[in-house]
Amino acid sequence: MTLLKQLAGIVGPTNVLTDAADLAPYLVEERGLYRGAAQAVVRPGSTEQVAEVVKACAAAGISMVPQGGNTGLCGGGVPSEDGGSVVISTERLNRIRRIDPIDFTLTAEAGCVLVNLQQAAAEVGCLFPLSLGAEGSCRIGGNISTNAGGTNVLRYGNTRDLVLGLEVVLPDGRVWNGLKRLRKDNTGYALQHLFIGAEGTLGIVTAAVLKLFPQPTEIQTALIALTDLDAALVLLARARRASGDAVTGCELIPRIGLELGARHVPGVRDPFEAAHPWYLLLELSSSRPGGLRHALEEMLAEALGEGLAVDAVLADSVEQRRALWRIREAIPEAQKKEGGSIKHDVAVATSLVPEMIRRCTRAVEAAMPGVRVVPFGHLGDGNTHFNLTQPESADKQVFLAQWDRMNRIVHDIVTEMEGSISAEHGIGRLKVAELAHYKPALDLDLMRRLKSAMDPRGLMNPGKILS
Amino acid sequence: MTLLKQLAGIVGPTNVLTDAADLAPYLVEERGLYRGAAQAVVRPGSTEQVAEVVKACAAAGISMVPQGGNTGLCGGGVPSEDGGSVVISTERLNRIRRIDPIDFTLTAEAGCVLVNLQQAAAEVGCLFPLSLGAEGSCRIGGNISTNAGGTNVLRYGNTRDLVLGLEVVLPDGRVWNGLKRLRKDNTGYALQHLFIGAEGTLGIVTAAVLKLFPQPTEIQTALIALTDLDAALVLLARARRASGDAVTGCELIPRIGLELGARHVPGVRDPFEAAHPWYLLLELSSSRPGGLRHALEEMLAEALGEGLAVDAVLADSVEQRRALWRIREAIPEAQKKEGGSIKHDVAVATSLVPEMIRRCTRAVEAAMPGVRVVPFGHLGDGNTHFNLTQPESADKQVFLAQWDRMNRIVHDIVTEMEGSISAEHGIGRLKVAELAHYKPALDLDLMRRLKSAMDPRGLMNPGKILS
Repeated sequence: MTLLKQLAGIVGPTNVLTDAADLAPYLVEERGLYRGAAQAVVRPGSTEQVAEVVKACAAAGISMVPQGGNTGLCGGGVPSEDGGSVVISTERLNRIRRIDPIDFTLTAEAGCVLVNLQQAAAEVGCLFPLSLGAEGSCRIGGNISTNAGGTNVLRYGNTRDLVLGLEVVLPDGRVWNGLKRLRKDNTGYALQHLFIGAEGTLGIVTAAVLKLFPQPTEIQTALIALTDLDAALVLLARARRASGDAVTGCELIPRIGLELGARHVPGVRDPFEAAHPWYLLLELSSSRPGGLRHALEEMLAEALGEGLAVDAVLADSVEQRRALWRIREAIPEAQKKEGGSIKHDVAVATSLVPEMIRRCTRAVEAAMPGVRVVPFGHLGDGNTHFNLTQPESADKQVFLAQWDRMNRIVHDIVTEMEGSISAEHGIGRLKVAELAHYKPALDLDLMRRLKSAMDPRGLMNPGKILS
Repeated sequence: MTLLKQLAGIVGPTNVLTDAADLAPYLVEERGLYRGAAQAVVRPGSTEQVAEVVKACAAAGISMVPQGGNTGLCGGGVPSEDGGSVVISTERLNRIRRIDPIDFTLTAEAGCVLVNLQQAAAEVGCLFPLSLGAEGSCRIGGNISTNAGGTNVLRYGNTRDLVLGLEVVLPDGRVWNGLKRLRKDNTGYALQHLFIGAEGTLGIVTAAVLKLFPQPTEIQTALIALTDLDAALVLLARARRASGDAVTGCELIPRIGLELGARHVPGVRDPFEAAHPWYLLLELSSSRPGGLRHALEEMLAEALGEGLAVDAVLADSVEQRRALWRIREAIPEAQKKEGGSIKHDVAVATSLVPEMIRRCTRAVEAAMPGVRVVPFGHLGDGNTHFNLTQPESADKQVFLAQWDRMNRIVHDIVTEMEGSISAEHGIGRLKVAELAHYKPALDLDLMRRLKSAMDPRGLMNPGKILS
C-alpha cells in the first residue's frame, strides 16, 4: 500500500490533499518569501490520528512538516522545495477540551485559532494574554512551537511562560502526555520546554494546558512624547512601580513611524500639535477596580514637570485607545506603502535599547546614505523591530538586494551587545544561515545533540533552525 | 600527578578538603537522612576554576557532585556512600556581578545565598521574589538546579520563571555562556531550561541572570477561618480578581496545624475565639500605593456576608503580619515536637486540592487508625504538604516504618488525579525509586536520552533523579 493510501486510511480521503490547487495555500509563506512543495497535506482530526500519520511517515522514511495557521514570518511551517515531505496540518485539532476559571487554566488542541482562545477565556471572566498581529488566524500550536511574543510579554511573559502542560506526538509517533494542569512539578527534566520554541523540529504539539489570568476591568492608555530615548526607560520603570506592575503594553514609536502611518494608513493621525522625535505607547491594565488612571496621571504630571516627558495624551474612550494603538500597529503597513523594507527582530537588555538603536542607526546610515530607519516595538521587552525603509526614490529591488549586508551590520552590533538576532519570530528557514553564523559553536553542538536525541532520523521539519 | 594534587593546583590547597572533620558538613543531609562519602570537597573560586576542576575529574573518570547550600530535602547534593566522587561546592562563587533597576535584572554567581540577593534587590528598590524556609543558607545555584518553589510562586512563578540566563559548566568542562539579560530570544532550543531543575545531573550552574520586580509598598495579610475547603478556592479566585492579581501568598492551614503550633511553638496563638476546621492565610502586595486594604476588606465583607468565610483577622502592623505567618511556618516544627512525621510534597490542579485532601485523608486514616493528617501549604499553586503526624502515644519508629506504605497510598491517588509526587522539592536520592515507579516509561526514556546526550559518561551527580 502506498503511503498516501495509508494516510487516507487514517484520516479519510478528504483529509489527504494532493491537488496542486488544494496544496497551494499550505506551501507558501504569506508574503511569498518561501514557496515549497510536498507530496501531500494531511489533516488529522485527533491526536491519535496525528500519531498514526507520523508512524506511517516514519515507517516510510518520509519527512514531516507540522503546520498551524501558517502565519509565521520565518518560513518555519513551509516545506522545502524538494517536494518529498508531507505537511501535517493541525487545523482540524480545534477543540477546547476544558476551561476552568477556578484553576485559571484552559486546555486546547493545537489547531485552535488564538482569537478563539482569547474569547473563550473572556466568556468565563478570564484573560488569555497572548496577543499578536496574526491572532485572527494563527493557531496555538504554532504559537507554542515558535514561543510567540507579542504585546503583552512585559507583564505576562512569552508563550513559554503561559504553558503549563503539553501533549506532543514524537518523531516516531509515540504520544508524550505532559498535559498536566500543575503550577509546580519537579519530577525530573522539564520535557515540555524542549518542544516550546522548537518550531516543530522535535515533535508535533497537539494540545496544551494554558494559564489564564483575571480579566482586566480597567485599562488606561497613554501616548507620551519624548525628546530623549533614555527617558522612555525611566518612564517604564516608574510606571511599573506606580501601577503595581500593571504595565501590560510599552511600545516605542519613532517620529517617522507616526509620519508614515499618517501618510498611508487611514485612521492614523498625530494627536500632538508639535512634532516629537519619539513616542512611548504605555498601557496599564488591572482587574482591581479604579486607581490606574490616577497612578498614570500622577506619574505623567511628575514626568512632564521634570521635562522627562514633553507631552502626553490619555485615551478617554475605547475609540481613543484604539486610535493610539492604530499608530503603533500601522507602522509595518505604512512601511510597505513606502517601498521596500529590510527587517530586523532584535533584542538586547532593556537598558541597552537606546544605545543599540543609536549604534545601529549610525552604522546603517553610514553604509547606505538616505536609508530611513524605523525602529519600533516592544521596548519593555528590549525587543526592537529595527526596520529599514528604502531611501526615497530608490529602486526597491536594488534596496532589497542589500538585505544580507544590512542584516550583517545590525546583527554584528546586536551580538556584540549580547543580544538576540531573533527576539520573537524564530529561525524557521529565514535565519538558519544567520544562526549558524552567530551562535557559538558550543550552543550549536548542544542543539544538535538534542535534535539527535529526540529525532535521530531527522524526519521532523528538516532544514528548520539547524541546517 | 594524582587528581587531588591537580585539583589543589587549580583551586589552591586550602580549597581541597580531605580531612574527615572538614568533609563532614558536606556529606550529610541536614536532617541526617543521607550520609555520603567523597574523595574530597573542592571549592573553586571562579567559573574558570569550576571548568578546570570538571575537566580534571572528567579526565580521571571521577564522578562529581555539585553542591550549593546543602539545604535540599531530597539529598540531591549529597554524594553516594561509595566515596568515589568529588564534591564541587559553589560556596566561593558568591559575587553579585551586576544589578540593574532599569532592566529589573540581577546577575549573580551560583554560590550567592538567597537572602543576600533579596537584600541586594531591596537596596535598589526592587524585589527578588524567591522566598522559602531555607533562604538564609540556601544558594541560588541550588535553587535553580532544583527549580525551587516557596511562598511567592502564585504571583511570580517558580525559580524557572525567574531566570533569564544561565552560565553552566558542562560535564566535559566546557563553559556554556547563556548569561543573557534578554526577555525575548527565539534563536533555537531553550538550552537553559535543560539545566533548571536538573539537580546538577547535566552540568554545574555557575551564574544566572535573574528577574527583579518593583518592590511592594503595600502588603495586606489576612487569616480567614473557613468551614469548607472548597470555599478557599473561591476566595482565592475572588482575591486575584479584586486585587488586580496581587495575591502573593495563599497558604492553607488545617485546624490541627494551628493547634500543634500553639501547643509547641512560642509565639503561635489562635487569633479567633472559636475553633474552625480550616484557615486560609492570604497576602496581597503591590508597589501601587493604597487600595489593597480596601479591596481585601470589601472582598472579605462579601464573603462573610455570604457565609463563604466564617471569620477573618487582618494584620494591622508588621508584628501582626509576622504573627499570622508564624502560624503557617510553625507547622513543620510543631509536627517534629509531636513525634514522627511522614511527608508528602504533592501537587494537583488547584481546583482539585479539596478532593485530593479528602481522598488521601480517608485512605490514610483507613490504613492507619489514629494517624493525624496535617495537610498544609501553597494552595494557590495546588501544592500541598500532605504530612502525617504519628498517632498519639504510638511508637515513633514503628510509625516511621510505614513511610513507604503511606507514600504509596498518597502517591497512587495523586497520580490518578494527574498530579505530581514532587511539587517543589525535587527527586534527589529520596524519590529516585518513586519516580521510576510513577513516571510513564516514555517520560523516563526521554529523560535518559537527554542525560545521555548531555553527559554521555554519566559523571555528573550520578544516582540523582535517574538511577
